[in-house]
Amino acid sequence: MKRGDRSSSSSCAPVSQCFPLRAAAAACGSETSSEPHRDQRAGVLRMSSITTFYACHLLLLALSLACVVCVCVWNSRWRGGFAWDGSSLQFNWHPVLMVVGLVVLYGNGAVLYRIPLTWGQNKLPWKILHAAFMLLALILSIVGLCAVFDFHNTNKIANLYSLHSWIGIVAAVLFAFQWAAGAAGFFLPCSPPALRRLLKPAHVWLGGAILILSIAACISGINEKLFFVLKGNDGKSQPYASLPSEALLGNFLGVLIVAFGLVVFRMLSNPLWQRQESSPQDLPYSPLLQDENQ
Amino acid sequence: MKRGDRSSSSSCAPVSQCFPLRAAAAACGSETSSEPHRDQRAGVLRMSSITTFYACHLLLLALSLACVVCVCVWNSRWRGGFAWDGSSLQFNWHPVLMVVGLVVLYGNGAVLYRIPLTWGQNKLPWKILHAAFMLLALILSIVGLCAVFDFHNTNKIANLYSLHSWIGIVAAVLFAFQWAAGAAGFFLPCSPPALRRLLKPAHVWLGGAILILSIAACISGINEKLFFVLKGNDGKSQPYASLPSEALLGNFLGVLIVAFGLVVFRMLSNPLWQRQESSPQDLPYSPLLQDENQ
Repeated sequence: MKRGDRSSSSSCAPVSQCFPLRAAAAACGSETSSEPHRDQRAGVLRMSSITTFYACHLLLLALSLACVVCVCVWNSRWRGGFAWDGSSLQFNWHPVLMVVGLVVLYGNGAVLYRIPLTWGQNKLPWKILHAAFMLLALILSIVGLCAVFDFHNTNKIANLYSLHSWIGIVAAVLFAFQWAAGAAGFFLPCSPPALRRLLKPAHVWLGGAILILSIAACISGINEKLFFVLKGNDGKSQPYASLPSEALLGNFLGVLIVAFGLVVFRMLSNPLWQRQESSPQDLPYSPLLQDENQ
Repeated sequence: MKRGDRSSSSSCAPVSQCFPLRAAAAACGSETSSEPHRDQRAGVLRMSSITTFYACHLLLLALSLACVVCVCVWNSRWRGGFAWDGSSLQFNWHPVLMVVGLVVLYGNGAVLYRIPLTWGQNKLPWKILHAAFMLLALILSIVGLCAVFDFHNTNKIANLYSLHSWIGIVAAVLFAFQWAAGAAGFFLPCSPPALRRLLKPAHVWLGGAILILSIAACISGINEKLFFVLKGNDGKSQPYASLPSEALLGNFLGVLIVAFGLVVFRMLSNPLWQRQESSPQDLPYSPLLQDENQ
């Protein structure tokens, strides 16, 4: 999840790994290729890498949509819909908002810098979009937590005792800390470049750690909820063990969330898909230009 | 999780990232430093990186021990111990063997190549140790699965219906596939270097994916078990919601497993801790020398 800082002015990678080629050519000096066949091979690799990225991104968007549809259909069709009145209908906001916020929006915000379309452009608008995605994800997660705390308090149910809740609350607290530290470290003009260089690998690693915590919290939460509601001895539901439609839908949602997380990690970890920072002179002026690439 | 193939003969990184320095010097050619102050700075960075690695490794070993102790104490002290007679005592082997196999041994086997002590040596003994660790982890996981399947069958309980079981069985099947593909691809002398280069990033990425699945399966499994046994209405147990000692121990085990997984990912993802492959002439002869570093 963490990767080393790479500066195009000081690093040199094999041609097949240089991407985009212009950055590689500027960096590698005497090792860059002037032979047409090498350029042609690198061009084919570049196109192949871009195509694979967009295939992965399309898969991620399809999984995002599937996760949102599944969690909404589950809670509206099988769990009775939504309300904010302290009833079980209020609880239904919890899985929807946590999956949409802490998984779908979070994961999509995390891979934003990997989109080749954004490369070679001023990073600031993408940085703002990344922060906005994450802020929206954080707000939805907090509202999702409020939904369950308020439901518990209204119904005299203890808070924060299960392992699911422990993992989930740690994920949410770390996410809030990560957003605040990221905003302070990468947005404030007074933040020194040395601090940004120090923060970046920690920010990337903690981002991945939060996603792992979110996935574990979602899987344990869905599992717990299905055991709670599919008892089979209350005359209202079939038992979970007989795998009724709701159980299949819930399990399928869990599988989709795990698949979504693994695609995000695949996209974040491929070194060919990491943003190749352009040199400052390629960028239009911006107030953060001094350290635009951190 | 995945990282690009790096060959010391064709790649060049900033001096601060070159590690060990001998490999960097061989690789970077004209960019390598002959100035004493640069060598001194790189030496300090190298020592600092090694020290941090061993601190992380020590933490990993401590977390390994804590996970094993917790899961054993939980199942022997609170769940009545172990047997292989179809009773709930047989079930108790399941959490112990899955945590020891699919988490502790698996994670420790995964970081084996990162240990600086192993660098610059013939990779074959470490490759054999890595495969042996993983085989032992796989065997323990399979016995752990047999324990729960046999317990379920004896007690007429359905198999593989919960989300926990779906995620867990996918993790185990992928692990078995990963071990077989790894053995065929990296051990068989007839396996061509091109295949090894193709397999390596997929092997590394799938290895990380399996660990994420294992963590999610463990968290959901512990959460499920604690809800099963701490009902509070059977006159034998206090409710989970009142957080009796067993609940605290189970939750603590879950937190330890997540912490263990995050330390493994930290160790795998730091580029400074990735094995710098030595050139073939540095290595003694071995039957796999032709492609020793794949």
